[in-house]
Amino acid sequence: MSGSARVGVVMGSRSDFETMTHALEVLRDLEVPYEARVLSAHRTPRLLERYAGSARERGLRAIIAGAGGAAHLPGMLAAFTTVPVLGVPVQSRALSGLDSLYSIVQMPGGVPVATFAIGQAGARNAALFAAALLAAEDGALLARLEAFRRAQTEAVLEDPFFEGHPPAPEGL
Amino acid sequence: MSGSARVGVVMGSRSDFETMTHALEVLRDLEVPYEARVLSAHRTPRLLERYAGSARERGLRAIIAGAGGAAHLPGMLAAFTTVPVLGVPVQSRALSGLDSLYSIVQMPGGVPVATFAIGQAGARNAALFAAALLAAEDGALLARLEAFRRAQTEAVLEDPFFEGHPPAPEGL
Amino acid sequence: MSGSARVGVVMGSRSDFETMTHALEVLRDLEVPYEARVLSAHRTPRLLERYAGSARERGLRAIIAGAGGAAHLPGMLAAFTTVPVLGVPVQSRALSGLDSLYSIVQMPGGVPVATFAIGQAGARNAALFAAALLAAEDGALLARLEAFRRAQTEAVLEDPFFEGHPPAPEGL
Amino acid sequence: MSGSARVGVVMGSRSDFETMTHALEVLRDLEVPYEARVLSAHRTPRLLERYAGSARERGLRAIIAGAGGAAHLPGMLAAFTTVPVLGVPVQSRALSGLDSLYSIVQMPGGVPVATFAIGQAGARNAALFAAALLAAEDGALLARLEAFRRAQTEAVLEDPFFEGHPPAPEGL
Amino acid sequence: MSGSARVGVVMGSRSDFETMTHALEVLRDLEVPYEARVLSAHRTPRLLERYAGSARERGLRAIIAGAGGAAHLPGMLAAFTTVPVLGVPVQSRALSGLDSLYSIVQMPGGVPVATFAIGQAGARNAALFAAALLAAEDGALLARLEAFRRAQTEAVLEDPFFEGHPPAPEGL
Amino acid sequence: MSGSARVGVVMGSRSDFETMTHALEVLRDLEVPYEARVLSAHRTPRLLERYAGSARERGLRAIIAGAGGAAHLPGMLAAFTTVPVLGVPVQSRALSGLDSLYSIVQMPGGVPVATFAIGQAGARNAALFAAALLAAEDGALLARLEAFRRAQTEAVLEDPFFEGHPPAPEGL
Amino acid sequence: MSGSARVGVVMGSRSDFETMTHALEVLRDLEVPYEARVLSAHRTPRLLERYAGSARERGLRAIIAGAGGAAHLPGMLAAFTTVPVLGVPVQSRALSGLDSLYSIVQMPGGVPVATFAIGQAGARNAALFAAALLAAEDGALLARLEAFRRAQTEAVLEDPFFEGHPPAPEGL
Amino acid sequence: MSGSARVGVVMGSRSDFETMTHALEVLRDLEVPYEARVLSAHRTPRLLERYAGSARERGLRAIIAGAGGAAHLPGMLAAFTTVPVLGVPVQSRALSGLDSLYSIVQMPGGVPVATFAIGQAGARNAALFAAALLAAEDGALLARLEAFRRAQTEAVLEDPFFEGHPPAPEGL
Repeated sequence: MSGSARVGVVMGSRSDFETMTHALEVLRDLEVPYEARVLSAHRTPRLLERYAGSARERGLRAIIAGAGGAAHLPGMLAAFTTVPVLGVPVQSRALSGLDSLYSIVQMPGGVPVATFAIGQAGARNAALFAAALLAAEDGALLARLEAFRRAQTEAVLEDPFFEGHPPAPEGL
Repeated sequence: MSGSARVGVVMGSRSDFETMTHALEVLRDLEVPYEARVLSAHRTPRLLERYAGSARERGLRAIIAGAGGAAHLPGMLAAFTTVPVLGVPVQSRALSGLDSLYSIVQMPGGVPVATFAIGQAGARNAALFAAALLAAEDGALLARLEAFRRAQTEAVLEDPFFEGHPPAPEGL
Repeated sequence: MSGSARVGVVMGSRSDFETMTHALEVLRDLEVPYEARVLSAHRTPRLLERYAGSARERGLRAIIAGAGGAAHLPGMLAAFTTVPVLGVPVQSRALSGLDSLYSIVQMPGGVPVATFAIGQAGARNAALFAAALLAAEDGALLARLEAFRRAQTEAVLEDPFFEGHPPAPEGL
Repeated sequence: MSGSARVGVVMGSRSDFETMTHALEVLRDLEVPYEARVLSAHRTPRLLERYAGSARERGLRAIIAGAGGAAHLPGMLAAFTTVPVLGVPVQSRALSGLDSLYSIVQMPGGVPVATFAIGQAGARNAALFAAALLAAEDGALLARLEAFRRAQTEAVLEDPFFEGHPPAPEGL
Repeated sequence: MSGSARVGVVMGSRSDFETMTHALEVLRDLEVPYEARVLSAHRTPRLLERYAGSARERGLRAIIAGAGGAAHLPGMLAAFTTVPVLGVPVQSRALSGLDSLYSIVQMPGGVPVATFAIGQAGARNAALFAAALLAAEDGALLARLEAFRRAQTEAVLEDPFFEGHPPAPEGL
Repeated sequence: MSGSARVGVVMGSRSDFETMTHALEVLRDLEVPYEARVLSAHRTPRLLERYAGSARERGLRAIIAGAGGAAHLPGMLAAFTTVPVLGVPVQSRALSGLDSLYSIVQMPGGVPVATFAIGQAGARNAALFAAALLAAEDGALLARLEAFRRAQTEAVLEDPFFEGHPPAPEGL
Repeated sequence: MSGSARVGVVMGSRSDFETMTHALEVLRDLEVPYEARVLSAHRTPRLLERYAGSARERGLRAIIAGAGGAAHLPGMLAAFTTVPVLGVPVQSRALSGLDSLYSIVQMPGGVPVATFAIGQAGARNAALFAAALLAAEDGALLARLEAFRRAQTEAVLEDPFFEGHPPAPEGL
Repeated sequence: MSGSARVGVVMGSRSDFETMTHALEVLRDLEVPYEARVLSAHRTPRLLERYAGSARERGLRAIIAGAGGAAHLPGMLAAFTTVPVLGVPVQSRALSGLDSLYSIVQMPGGVPVATFAIGQAGARNAALFAAALLAAEDGALLARLEAFRRAQTEAVLEDPFFEGHPPAPEGL
């Protein structure tokens, strides 16, 4: 049920889904209960207030917010709650997400938003970061997270790619 | 007839039409009488002067001007009239509209141009802003504008998109 | 009295006053009734909502909002009202106001903010623009505005600066 | 003793202290036990590995890392631990911290770093964010954090600054 | 007399003089007859039109125009004349002249402006370039220009600065 | 024959031809005798020196140089001649020509390069500018140039595009 | 065998191969023995340490490292070895490699990384630079390198491209 | 004597000395024989050619070149020699060295320049890199270089700076 979600994932518009789905995928893989929906700072400001204002009592431990352009969603969520807000700058059409990045990361002192990379990499990392927050009190999740990291390392270590000229008889 | 236009929409070249048509669409939807044409600061400077110089007496209450690159059209219109000028930076080829944006927004103190976002979003918003100016004295237009805003909000609120893991039995 | 203010001037923090005072000066010079105060999107989001939500009924015809960094103040005011919002990007410490500019001007389609230059020039121009809006229905204000523009032109025309080599016997 | 620190604050060089002291001040104000030291990704890479590798067992729940230029400190800490790493881009001489920001925020998918604003605001917010992480399980800290936020809000609300022309008889 | 000026130097405001004086100095050194004045695209657009429109018949062979921010002066001069226009971006306060540069150099195809470096170096080079234009038909000026270039080269060649470790017994 | 060329057009590599062909087209249309070839500052520095060093005696009155990336071609030509050099920044792959622009326009005081817009617009305008230089002493060319400008203006004035809502009975 | 490699080529992920293959091609053409593999600063930090730490004793005379985004690979290699590290910024998705460039080139004083152009040109040049390092003690390699440079020059000199209007009877 | 210099340090103008002196200091500290002088790509192009053309036979094993703005010095040196060229972008007035950086690092494939950080850090690192090149065949220099690196590491490790709240009884 909704009450069991530990992480809220919100995005400024449906068009941000292509980016934010990478966050959802990581949360599912790590078995972190989440909820996801569209929530617009500019078009639904009162819903934003209710969402952020009720986040702690509804049990959310982190809110991942993706938005593009003059991206006010993460900052305004943070204005209404002390639940950690993780911002993902969505790549915009004209300025490639630089506008999104500046609008999210350059928050004034007093109201923090944790910001991640522009686009897909940022969406994945925001989810991994949310998992790390929860893992502090959840040994099983910590184990899953560390297994994910190890698998990631091994994928590089076992990469069959090794080239040399002249060809080397054996690897490093 | 032309005399009844309240908003003039001008653009630096035919190639800007793809962007500026989004302004025209909003004006039509909100039933704001407008006129639209190509007008180039660099290729037709004398027409620009006549257009801006006659804007007030012809009944225009706002001029929306879209241009790209070293975009001088909005600023030069503003130099010849006190009718509010709304500038739309058109996305340029090499610099993605950053040159257009700087050329429009960084006007020196004394001659204002109201600037909107690069590209299609800016074109739409300039038209909405022009409607808001006129709505101050036109209750019916204000009602249409507020209905537009409500519909926009409801489109988000009623968005069937809501996902969770595990699936939530009901929405927020 | 406050009720008679036609233009609201708000700023994200006391440190923005040095910039925004240039807007206040123009409004006083043109005899436009205004009110001014600090209003923070992030520190006082509920006051922001009340301010914007009551702007039209309180008689405000424009809101000038100055903010720096991840400047959400103008955009969030615009989310809560259809009264025209004029944004002034305040020059920030690290990014010279580029973050402020992007956060204000790159609004998504649907919720417009009219943006002016970074810093003092933008503050002055936002006030001149607000005066132009009001002048549409206020002949005396229009006359003052046009006198301001003429005086500005004459200050250049009468500029004693004219240099030549060899010295010219008379001016242009 | 050192073992009781919950937040580690590290910085790439002594010259970053002027920025990072704003994080320390917030942690002291909120009574969050911390430790702070210089730790250089490039000059002391093996110490970095030991620091990050032992962070979880030493009881750190977050590491705040400030660095400038090609700022590799936060990302390399994150490479060696799953304890949340909070990066603060220190304002650099030539590129004003844009190089620091990009080097910290643009992490590839798989190894997250939560990034905050360039300079002093970012240092304060990283500390507030770390406190929010800990507050999830520490009711007294949550109360102190919420009191800090309320005080911050009230400082704006009670700001005696209110100006109008003509002067308003009373406030908003 | 004014009629004998071959190069017109104009600047958008008195504050640009500090930069543009470097152009005047070069013209005086090379004995190129010039005239100089303030001329604002935005505050004196009709004077701009008269100035550019009469440039050829008044004998000007080049117009050097310095301006900052949304610098429309060079481009608008070029719109009204085929006399070569040389643009100098003046360093602006917030964006360091990047706005000036983009507004001058990114002219659309059809109306050229020759652009030089931001600030003092650009002012000097615009004057040297104007001299080179005139030198094509003025052998004495060409000789002065080439002497200037030789002197500049020799100043480097004869630079007593030569350091080595261990000290070298003689130069290169 | 080659000796009759008045304008030299050089480009850093064959791949720049797509851009620079727009300069050649303008020169042909205006009947300006030109020569064109590849000339690389980095790959053929000695040819560059010979080309620039012989330019004046071979009768060239301007050299148009297009190059991309760390574009040294225009500046190095200018180092070897006082014949006016017109630089065209070619749009580069990673930085969209911003690197080309900076490398060409930011010449130090003493050695001028006249810079035009990035890409095709810049190529056209460099050719128009070269024609304007030559037109100072060539009445027939001046007439062709002014006819080109008039035709360009009329193309806008006669543009059948004129739209209004409701439709206007006649044009402006 | 691996021991005979003089240049190590490493890249942050498989996706960088498309860029880095241009380095491998140059090394093969110049007959420089090399080895190549994926090595990630963030996913395999301990392998990175071993790789860099053993580089000198394994006979590597240069390490070419390509990476994108917050590219820490070259800098961290340099932290663990005094073998020269050559960094290649790989073009990134959102910021076109500007983030990669800043993360590599802006190293603090004390730990040098030699940086080359973003993308393919940088990969080729890093390999040519590595060859030049080795050529200082290897006359045959120096001869091959100089032959490569001559061939490159001749390819331009012999370029059949030469165009003129009217057509020139012979080349320059 | 000059003939014994192994590293040439050149700079585009006397004003670059303040930056480049940091390279000279490192070379002296590491006892690397060097020579240093002003050499301008634009003002002394023929000297540049002679300098680069004779570098190898004069025994130079690396050339460190510092320049600002449209910095063509490193690239043009590399055009005339296969001796490794190390470029240092000097911080420029308007664009903070971004123009210098782009002009140096974005070299086309075929002619490499190894680029270091903008300003003082880059100057120091270019010298350290040159020392590393020479150290490949000079065991004593390698020992000095490694001692420098160790001392640098120890300076951090022994940093008395360690702060905690509450104060920790002992260090990490």
